[in-house]
Amino acid sequence: MTAAWTAGPGALHSRDSHLWSVEDGDEIAVSCARTDQYALKFGSPYTVPLRELFAAARDRYDCTTVYFIADRKCVSVIEPARDEATACGLSVLGTSTLTGHESSKSVDSTLRMWDELSTAGVLRRTLVVGIGGGVTCDVTGFIASTYMRGVPYALLPTTLMAQVDAAIGGKTGVNLHGQKNLIGAFYHPIGVVIDPDAVRSLPDRILAAGLAEVIKVAVIGSPELFEMVAVADLHDFRSDPALARAVVRLAIREKLRQLSCDPMELGDLRRTLNFGHCVGHAIEAELGYAWLHGECVAAGMAVASRLGERMGHAAPALVSRILDTLARLGLPLRVPDEISEVVWDHLVRIERVRNGNLHIVVPGGKIGACVSLPAWPVEVAWDDVR
Amino acid sequence: MTAAWTAGPGALHSRDSHLWSVEDGDEIAVSCARTDQYALKFGSPYTVPLRELFAAARDRYDCTTVYFIADRKCVSVIEPARDEATACGLSVLGTSTLTGHESSKSVDSTLRMWDELSTAGVLRRTLVVGIGGGVTCDVTGFIASTYMRGVPYALLPTTLMAQVDAAIGGKTGVNLHGQKNLIGAFYHPIGVVIDPDAVRSLPDRILAAGLAEVIKVAVIGSPELFEMVAVADLHDFRSDPALARAVVRLAIREKLRQLSCDPMELGDLRRTLNFGHCVGHAIEAELGYAWLHGECVAAGMAVASRLGERMGHAAPALVSRILDTLARLGLPLRVPDEISEVVWDHLVRIERVRNGNLHIVVPGGKIGACVSLPAWPVEVAWDDVR
Repeated sequence: MTAAWTAGPGALHSRDSHLWSVEDGDEIAVSCARTDQYALKFGSPYTVPLRELFAAARDRYDCTTVYFIADRKCVSVIEPARDEATACGLSVLGTSTLTGHESSKSVDSTLRMWDELSTAGVLRRTLVVGIGGGVTCDVTGFIASTYMRGVPYALLPTTLMAQVDAAIGGKTGVNLHGQKNLIGAFYHPIGVVIDPDAVRSLPDRILAAGLAEVIKVAVIGSPELFEMVAVADLHDFRSDPALARAVVRLAIREKLRQLSCDPMELGDLRRTLNFGHCVGHAIEAELGYAWLHGECVAAGMAVASRLGERMGHAAPALVSRILDTLARLGLPLRVPDEISEVVWDHLVRIERVRNGNLHIVVPGGKIGACVSLPAWPVEVAWDDVR
Repeated sequence: MTAAWTAGPGALHSRDSHLWSVEDGDEIAVSCARTDQYALKFGSPYTVPLRELFAAARDRYDCTTVYFIADRKCVSVIEPARDEATACGLSVLGTSTLTGHESSKSVDSTLRMWDELSTAGVLRRTLVVGIGGGVTCDVTGFIASTYMRGVPYALLPTTLMAQVDAAIGGKTGVNLHGQKNLIGAFYHPIGVVIDPDAVRSLPDRILAAGLAEVIKVAVIGSPELFEMVAVADLHDFRSDPALARAVVRLAIREKLRQLSCDPMELGDLRRTLNFGHCVGHAIEAELGYAWLHGECVAAGMAVASRLGERMGHAAPALVSRILDTLARLGLPLRVPDEISEVVWDHLVRIERVRNGNLHIVVPGGKIGACVSLPAWPVEVAWDDVR
């Protein structure tokens, strides 16, 4: 696969599309191919790779202006980013801010930002830059994908969750009527700048929630990454810059590998990347986002691990290590009693809507051997594993 | 180009995406490639190709359900379409309706339909079918592109404008604050079914407006198509089924050819496809859509043709034929006096926003030789050509 892609410095940043057609009787066969190529750049401080990104936006995408969408908490990041943009000759048209809470991933935020971009004079040659956590990355991507049928955008993910998950893979979206990511698009940025050192100063809950996604991709496919996180606690991540960098790098590499065959989810729904997310999404919906996404995924992985062990798929020693690792990071291992019943109802509803296909992913005999169960097995009682 | 595409019956309907990455020091180069392949099918009646399309949705995209978005005037088309869907084993989840007026291309319509799809239980394996004119095609495509990060959709364009323009090329969008298509996406359908006979019974204004887009693509690149429309009047299109079919086929073929190099408009803005649209969009914005889109384009082409002749680019005989053809179809040739000044102000504003680049496309010495002027030439007074 990689052989087809001979990267030069310019090729790192390009978008390309072609359409062709063949007529045959009363039919015209149309094909449209599109390729996006871009770079994820690591750097502490992030200002050097950011300047390279702005230069690429100017030289490769003919951008003359830039517009920021930022988490209110990231003001310290906005200022140097504005300076770098200006140094590259890009005029800053303005900044939209939002809170990093899940409630900002809304249609209301979308309408407000469409207005703000329009008022600020954002055009098809304006680079939109998102600065913040997962919520900011998802909203920025969706705004960029729909404004003027798509403007170039870049991301500076500031949380671990955003660095290893939200900013990787081109999935954008907002929630509607409590349905997560009901409205969104697959739309890749022209660049992502990652400062792995930044995550070391995150609050405990935010850092642990990000590590939940790291554990997810590790269990799905990377023994090396799992060994790294399964022996560490929050203090280790804070005090060991090399560990934080290695974990971020490996988690991103593994996530990209897992996305490679079907990044737009055009195939079936049994993707192992959903490990922890089946029950996790149900918890998230019922708790009204009182828990962080990563905390919900952690509880979802714990439930799926116990279920996998009951079914004889998951090795007991592996399940034990997964649960220990989540516990050491202070992540939840159980669905709270008070919502247990509604979470179960939620799963039953999903299974019914999908014509009996719940597709719950459970660990297998070892790291990298996850199994997707089509439906909740009748022989396992919810209350025994939840 | 076409050699790379070896079409079998299955290959006519597929979507495919891959992502790959290469690490190099502090950089991961990511590439994501996507290909959409689908068929435009012609048929009178449209029921046979429609059934083939539903079968493809079922067999190639695993669709089990279908949802309609239709112009209220197209009820006669919805019923047989529902029957064909049912015959193919697809359950009909519901129908959203809209009026075909430009005012329906709005964020309000978008919000309403997101709600209606959600309430009806539309999922990623639901085929969304748009039935109507250009407005319906544009709105349906945008809804499909954003709901659940993109669901498969198909179009049954019922007007000439929709058949030769809106349903071709994957451009979707809605208006915001009077800015046409400010919000939208490039997103291809999985199939388009075209009944060229249907356009013969359209009201005069609707038929003529569609012919304006035909004249546009003809002037840009097809002497054969231009000769066909330059000698016909509305009566000829109504009374001669072979003429209507040939015009629709040639116009679509030519439009696809013109899109081929850069279907997502990633390159520069000086695309000849904008012939008639620079002034046309300004008229449309100022008249508040009292004129049809095609009527605005017609007046825009007339202004651009006179401008091209003044500049010595356009052959006088060609300009004369273009103006005669538009006049014979009852299309407007002038910017109305009462909005002349505001339309001019609009052009000046666009030129300023684009850093002095208006990019007005004018005819050249012959069909297929259009020229893009970067700015309005100072030596030609607006009042002399508008």
